Amino acid sequence: MPFEHEWTVRFADTDPFRIAHYPDIVVAIHDVADRFMESIGFPFWELSGEHGYGLPIVEFHVEFERPVRAGDAVRIELTPSLGDRSARFDYAAYAPDGELAFTAYEQRACVPVDGDRAMALPDDLREAMAPHAEG
Amino acid sequence: MPFEHEWTVRFADTDPFRIAHYPDIVVAIHDVADRFMESIGFPFWELSGEHGYGLPIVEFHVEFERPVRAGDAVRIELTPSLGDRSARFDYAAYAPDGELAFTAYEQRACVPVDGDRAMALPDDLREAMAPHAEG
Amino acid sequence: MPFEHEWTVRFADTDPFRIAHYPDIVVAIHDVADRFMESIGFPFWELSGEHGYGLPIVEFHVEFERPVRAGDAVRIELTPSLGDRSARFDYAAYAPDGELAFTAYEQRACVPVDGDRAMALPDDLREAMAPHAEG
Amino acid sequence: MPFEHEWTVRFADTDPFRIAHYPDIVVAIHDVADRFMESIGFPFWELSGEHGYGLPIVEFHVEFERPVRAGDAVRIELTPSLGDRSARFDYAAYAPDGELAFTAYEQRACVPVDGDRAMALPDDLREAMAPHAEG
Repeated sequence: MPFEHEWTVRFADTDPFRIAHYPDIVVAIHDVADRFMESIGFPFWELSGEHGYGLPIVEFHVEFERPVRAGDAVRIELTPSLGDRSARFDYAAYAPDGELAFTAYEQRACVPVDGDRAMALPDDLREAMAPHAEG
Repeated sequence: MPFEHEWTVRFADTDPFRIAHYPDIVVAIHDVADRFMESIGFPFWELSGEHGYGLPIVEFHVEFERPVRAGDAVRIELTPSLGDRSARFDYAAYAPDGELAFTAYEQRACVPVDGDRAMALPDDLREAMAPHAEG
Repeated sequence: MPFEHEWTVRFADTDPFRIAHYPDIVVAIHDVADRFMESIGFPFWELSGEHGYGLPIVEFHVEFERPVRAGDAVRIELTPSLGDRSARFDYAAYAPDGELAFTAYEQRACVPVDGDRAMALPDDLREAMAPHAEG
Repeated sequence: MPFEHEWTVRFADTDPFRIAHYPDIVVAIHDVADRFMESIGFPFWELSGEHGYGLPIVEFHVEFERPVRAGDAVRIELTPSLGDRSARFDYAAYAPDGELAFTAYEQRACVPVDGDRAMALPDDLREAMAPHAEG
């Protein structure tokens, strides 16, 4: 089942149209990835130092279905898909009334700290992500 | 008693020294004000439309005692002080080990939407803030 | 010919890996759109008030080819494509050595302030964008 | 004479009141420090690696005199003051009509990478800053 995080849109995230500004939505999406990795025991801030690799983003895509506003509690689901040398994080975000607000995905490569070619996704990371993966 | 919020420093808040970057700390402080106002029933995003005034910041000050890092759960306390036509929010933030990490204050004026001179702090706002004020 | 803007990556844009953090790259891309619209006489902050419509983003996509670092002067090109009721902004960003650093696009709908269905892209906006469009 | 930078307020910097949001002003101020250090040959991103020390902020203060809006070209002056083991950066920002918009200062300590007590400000840094210092 997906990893979930509830993001309450803050006043600081809104623009003169009183809706969440899209770069702030990107930050909110990234924040879910950050919390997901922490929750499965592989926080981004330990990856390179303790595990010797990183998961840099090679591609990011987002589609906005409807605006969200300050005070809205937006439920964001993250579903990882595991590749051989990569991982993809899919996001679906729901407004307080349950309607889809936006969807997104991040395509991430698994890259060793001391190299620039992708490496196989380590087994322990794979196992930690598996309970949240589809299928 | 103070209003409290726990801010967990995210990877995105950190700089190349691996510590929280100070503009991100300012954002975190402001976020506490935003949550405080929401919690007492006067969210910033309703102030001007529903109440006819705002609380713009005229002065902001912060002192850093020690750095905080990604993953640190920082407890931030907000204590409001009520003036005639203004409010001051004092902040104290504590690192996970209980040590003081930073202190700050915001001096805010109470200004009507259709004017530019400060007005008296309305009684209902004053009463909503009072339980969290000092003394 | 494309609209161009040079973005110098700042220290504040970098993460613990000392490379530009991707949400900051999104902000930098959006900043180019903002400067483009200002340069053609239709700044975002006047669109709704003076022209009665907006250009909200419905889709955003970015691909990262290689990292950029603090101090790098990144040349970002924006090429608009004009649809009937929409506009697409394509971006190509080049590192100081001339290599492609990232590409992106924003798909924008033309939406009246007082409605929620797309309207035809006004002729004056179309003409202002045309010199920068492809073909 | 002061170091100067012109900051044009972007749409993304503004809030629902259509004025620059204060955390974005803090980012703009910090950006001037970043450009100043780069201009005198000591960019922040080289300090620790090439010079063995940093200039972390221990205190930051800002006072807002009047709001600035999207499209405003704000002239920001930075004047450094040199202490024995510290530096203070004073800022004054002027709206397009020449009126003072905000003032600020950063108090910075000079701290070696491998220690946590302040060290004497190195002579070469002192000399690089001197032409911009007061008096």
